[in-house]
Amino acid sequence: MISRFADLVKALPRRGPSNPFHHRCHPPVPPPRARAMSDLRAPEHQVAGHRASINKLGPLVDGAGLFYKPLQAGDRGEHEAAFYEKFSAHPAVPSRIRDAFFPGYHGTRLLPTAARPDEPHPHLVLDDLLAGLDAPSVIDIKIGACTWPPSSPEPYIAKCVAKDRGSTSVVLGFRVSGARVVGTGGAVWRPERPEIKALDTTAVRRVLRRYVSSVADEGMDCALAAAVYGGEGGVLSQLRELKAWFEEQTLFHFYSASILLGYDANAVSSAGVGGGVRVKLVDFAHVDEGDGVIDHNFLGGLCSLIKFISDIVDETPKTPPLGPTFRSEKGTPNQTVGNCPSLQTDGNPYLFSNPIF
Amino acid sequence: MISRFADLVKALPRRGPSNPFHHRCHPPVPPPRARAMSDLRAPEHQVAGHRASINKLGPLVDGAGLFYKPLQAGDRGEHEAAFYEKFSAHPAVPSRIRDAFFPGYHGTRLLPTAARPDEPHPHLVLDDLLAGLDAPSVIDIKIGACTWPPSSPEPYIAKCVAKDRGSTSVVLGFRVSGARVVGTGGAVWRPERPEIKALDTTAVRRVLRRYVSSVADEGMDCALAAAVYGGEGGVLSQLRELKAWFEEQTLFHFYSASILLGYDANAVSSAGVGGGVRVKLVDFAHVDEGDGVIDHNFLGGLCSLIKFISDIVDETPKTPPLGPTFRSEKGTPNQTVGNCPSLQTDGNPYLFSNPIF
Repeated sequence: MISRFADLVKALPRRGPSNPFHHRCHPPVPPPRARAMSDLRAPEHQVAGHRASINKLGPLVDGAGLFYKPLQAGDRGEHEAAFYEKFSAHPAVPSRIRDAFFPGYHGTRLLPTAARPDEPHPHLVLDDLLAGLDAPSVIDIKIGACTWPPSSPEPYIAKCVAKDRGSTSVVLGFRVSGARVVGTGGAVWRPERPEIKALDTTAVRRVLRRYVSSVADEGMDCALAAAVYGGEGGVLSQLRELKAWFEEQTLFHFYSASILLGYDANAVSSAGVGGGVRVKLVDFAHVDEGDGVIDHNFLGGLCSLIKFISDIVDETPKTPPLGPTFRSEKGTPNQTVGNCPSLQTDGNPYLFSNPIF
Repeated sequence: MISRFADLVKALPRRGPSNPFHHRCHPPVPPPRARAMSDLRAPEHQVAGHRASINKLGPLVDGAGLFYKPLQAGDRGEHEAAFYEKFSAHPAVPSRIRDAFFPGYHGTRLLPTAARPDEPHPHLVLDDLLAGLDAPSVIDIKIGACTWPPSSPEPYIAKCVAKDRGSTSVVLGFRVSGARVVGTGGAVWRPERPEIKALDTTAVRRVLRRYVSSVADEGMDCALAAAVYGGEGGVLSQLRELKAWFEEQTLFHFYSASILLGYDANAVSSAGVGGGVRVKLVDFAHVDEGDGVIDHNFLGGLCSLIKFISDIVDETPKTPPLGPTFRSEKGTPNQTVGNCPSLQTDGNPYLFSNPIF
């Protein structure tokens, strides 16, 4: 794709040894104190995208609130950096929208990596969206039936169309790209990539239910639906605020971007409400100029996601029945399975046991 | 496409001489008095689709409020009839939505046609959406970035994708399929099909402005924007009511359907308000089952159209400056050109004279 932010791309740092620690900062947001390289590590809670390893570039976190995302290959990385530069300074973007729904942007930085120790690579310096969450439950949802900007080259479009049609994107207007759900006692459910790729409509609905269930391995009680999805500051109210902006904004078209949902499983399960619910947009390598037209593709998918989530809230009790009496050891029938009417199992509490697909 | 309403399709009348005047009626709506064949004629105000002629099947009207649409070739016609049967009797469709936004359906009828006098052809019997309008100004807008149901055969999908990408559908989420605008003194502007097919984003915006301009041949004053698009009962308020339904309804996906806008140019231009504004959905040959998912494709395009139209309302005066002092003879500069700020012509009132593209 030819970058629509070409003027900004020219100004970005290129990888190479001549400028190993160049750090561009978005002026209004002073960068937090730089951490030593030894502090950086691969994030524990990443659910989609490449993971950093000895052979692969991947994001890093510093444990103090910053997330370093390596610029992607081709022009995608530079395009994403150019988007962040433009978006973070755009006078027509309401500060409430920027602060509530987008990662804070602190410029780019060349970093040596485990994959290429002698060849520093430019990274976006962003807020770590999961910082401060003790036990993050996370889901990454790629929004839009169409993930390709219309100006993309034909082979790229053909590849994207195949993926969009092969996943739930065309039918639902979104697809789940990754999930990590922390259940009772810290048990983590994280489906592998082949499972994620195979999700159909029914399975997507189940994943969205599982995301708000207090048991990770034994069916779905949707016990956290009211706390995480519903109520003031919950996912639904945040998504609706975002929707209102998308009904009006004609600045950007967010092809192939994701909505990342996060909450603290420890905080929400102990209090029954709250839990630091976060709704953030991520992944802007294919954002296009809006040219005075709303992003109907993103908006349609967002409305579809809202309907899926509001259906779950509507069919679950307002007060989540949390507490030890509603939990059980593995293999013991309990009362939690019946909390979602549409998941009634005819008395068999094991019908939705692992795997859920 | 394999019909998703197969059970209903079996019950529909087939063309053939054995049952020349079969008439299926939707029970709750008694059919108006049958007209003699000689009363039927091609509608004057059709703006899209095939027109009836000696060689071609096309819709007919009886002048008494009914519109006869020949079932299309292949399974499209039977699919559309099956949709009408299902939709008109569906208990989950609010009667307000059905009555306000869809043509009344009165079954099907085998009719001899000019194209095939010896071979009666099944027709949908529908309300004539423009009945009662003295001087109908009409625009047909195909909604959705994607016009193909996902279950369609590959060659059909490839053909539709090419059309969607070659028109404004992918970029805007809709495309204009036809228009007819009645101006001062009854002058009619009706772009031909090649002009319509060539419309880009800028030209679509101009067509939507021209649709509410009181002069058909000399630029665009947007003098009717407040009366037709804005205000109580105007296009915008009707589209927003439709949007609210699309945010919730998961019964049908309206691929390749159009929104038809109509108003009476005589009534609106004499009164300055009202004018029998109509907002109707038409063309259901590719409607698919919703399967519990909202029609995010139609909804996204609808939101995009709403934004285009609300932009026009926002930039024009609330009270349309109608009346003889604001009109002029051809070639005489007048005050109407400057009513749309974005159409300011630096004092040259002829800049947007015909053609507008």
